[in-house]
Amino acid sequence: MSAPAPAVKAAVESRRELVNAAFDERLPIEEPERLYRASRHLLDAGGKRLRPVVTLLVAEALLDGDVTDERYEAMSTLDGSDEIDLMAAAASIETIQSFTLIHDDIMDDDDLRRGVPAVHRVFDTETAILAGDTLYSKAFEFMLETGGRPERMVQALSELAQTCTRICEGQSLDVEFERRRAVTTDEYIHMVEQKTAVLYAAAARIPALLLGADQETADALGAYGLDVGRAFQIRDDVLDLTVPSEQLGKQRGSDLVEGKRTAVTLHAREQGVDVESLVATDDLDAVTEDEINAAVATLEEAGSIEYARTLSRDLVERGKSRLDVLPDNEAHELLAGLAEYLIERGY
Amino acid sequence: MSAPAPAVKAAVESRRELVNAAFDERLPIEEPERLYRASRHLLDAGGKRLRPVVTLLVAEALLDGDVTDERYEAMSTLDGSDEIDLMAAAASIETIQSFTLIHDDIMDDDDLRRGVPAVHRVFDTETAILAGDTLYSKAFEFMLETGGRPERMVQALSELAQTCTRICEGQSLDVEFERRRAVTTDEYIHMVEQKTAVLYAAAARIPALLLGADQETADALGAYGLDVGRAFQIRDDVLDLTVPSEQLGKQRGSDLVEGKRTAVTLHAREQGVDVESLVATDDLDAVTEDEINAAVATLEEAGSIEYARTLSRDLVERGKSRLDVLPDNEAHELLAGLAEYLIERGY
Repeated sequence: MSAPAPAVKAAVESRRELVNAAFDERLPIEEPERLYRASRHLLDAGGKRLRPVVTLLVAEALLDGDVTDERYEAMSTLDGSDEIDLMAAAASIETIQSFTLIHDDIMDDDDLRRGVPAVHRVFDTETAILAGDTLYSKAFEFMLETGGRPERMVQALSELAQTCTRICEGQSLDVEFERRRAVTTDEYIHMVEQKTAVLYAAAARIPALLLGADQETADALGAYGLDVGRAFQIRDDVLDLTVPSEQLGKQRGSDLVEGKRTAVTLHAREQGVDVESLVATDDLDAVTEDEINAAVATLEEAGSIEYARTLSRDLVERGKSRLDVLPDNEAHELLAGLAEYLIERGY
Repeated sequence: MSAPAPAVKAAVESRRELVNAAFDERLPIEEPERLYRASRHLLDAGGKRLRPVVTLLVAEALLDGDVTDERYEAMSTLDGSDEIDLMAAAASIETIQSFTLIHDDIMDDDDLRRGVPAVHRVFDTETAILAGDTLYSKAFEFMLETGGRPERMVQALSELAQTCTRICEGQSLDVEFERRRAVTTDEYIHMVEQKTAVLYAAAARIPALLLGADQETADALGAYGLDVGRAFQIRDDVLDLTVPSEQLGKQRGSDLVEGKRTAVTLHAREQGVDVESLVATDDLDAVTEDEINAAVATLEEAGSIEYARTLSRDLVERGKSRLDVLPDNEAHELLAGLAEYLIERGY
């Protein structure tokens, strides 16, 4: 059973507030002030906090609703032998996400993020590199603040470190693919997994490790995160083509105009579509609705939009089935609903 | 007792070879190849490996020469209850050093490092940022590979994470000071401590934590690293002025030409010397030996060179006295000798 979308949204929002409060407390603006202001810039600009919410929900589901602290800071472990600060783990995951956004924006020379200027635009590239580097170590500091049994902390830290390495590998593949002529859909999905999905996997797996769940449960939760993370990215590729510009908050079809490889365009190329010629301009301000409509029609005819839609739907279904290791409870339903929500959202 | 310079050099060299071999094994060039080649670039270019050598020597001193594995990979802890892979800890420390060099070179837009082009010159800025980020997580992965008791691993990882945060803070201060008019010598020394010395402290403290030494011993060894690291940097400021260009491998007095703040120039300014006017040009190719000689004479007259020399000497003496927590043995003498060597080297 999946919780309905309004319940998922309400659950995400209430927990997001707690995550935001945690950052105010755990990442204060201290000396050197400029560095910490830059480190907080994107965190303060908002964001859905989906990954830390997954961390909190997985814990709630495992504990079968037995949340011993409404701020998630003193959560009894599964055998009740000790307490952990689960919010520290949730903050750690979001901190990694924020560090990668700051460095990605430098690499792509993007001006905007979450509706505000990128860190390297507000400050400068030096400060942005350093702000990312600071968040990187802070994420490990936060994870070390969870407390609990050392052998479980070591497992969580190991998951975190390996996840960061894989994110770097994924980003490196992304850069490489942009320069390469031919990329297969399989290569693309592998890249998405490394660059994006592994952090969802860590978000779902780490609370299981910290609370002392068995290995099978932790592995299944990690697989849920991987499936949902991949589905999320692939669905984004579809939404770029199907959701009106006003709702997207950016030009519909921008991936086509900018020549970005997506699950949709790579499939179309494999069907023989001349993807480069779908949209004549590479200028987002010059492209017309008619051009985008014609391009989308060609992609629909090739079955490429349906391909990506089915792929993300199948991944969500598989992800939900991974949750069978959890007891039946509200948090379990919310995690299933979150998977649905991620691909159903209009934006 | 300090070991004499030739013995120190030989000890450093033999252990450096082992550290280099460890990188061949632990950081292979795998997919994505470009990322890992960039990550290895500076490590392969050489370097003295002083920090990991400190890690190995501290372990040898604590174990009183009872090194159970000549590759340092299976070292019995102090109470003999288990074994740790100490080389993994040494590699972790050097990996952090290499990550900071890659990112620093991007920030300073430096072309050369260790006699080879900087990573962002051989590859590109995107790849260099990512290579640094990859080494960052690899350093944590390596530290997690030391094995041994989880509570000790947690202590070592905590030291590593906090050290990285402090390095970022120090680098941020360095950037800030370059833009600021007035910087005091105390502020400068604090910056040097954060940016450079803390990694020597971690290099000396972490083996004590991993081997199960008591807190007092670990703290004293950390203090040794801090003192030696500060002395090293301040002595560099002196050497830039006193060692002939051929021996330095760069123009003597380059810090003056480039207007860099150093312990020497900050002291001189506090004595009323108009430091900015000491050398007229800011072009390293245009400056003459006579100009440098005149500037050095003024700095000598102000007592600034002597001030920095005395400061680094005092720090080395204090650092050596911290080693009193160690048993009397060869490795202890080598650590004392290393402190001397760092400031006596000619270049």
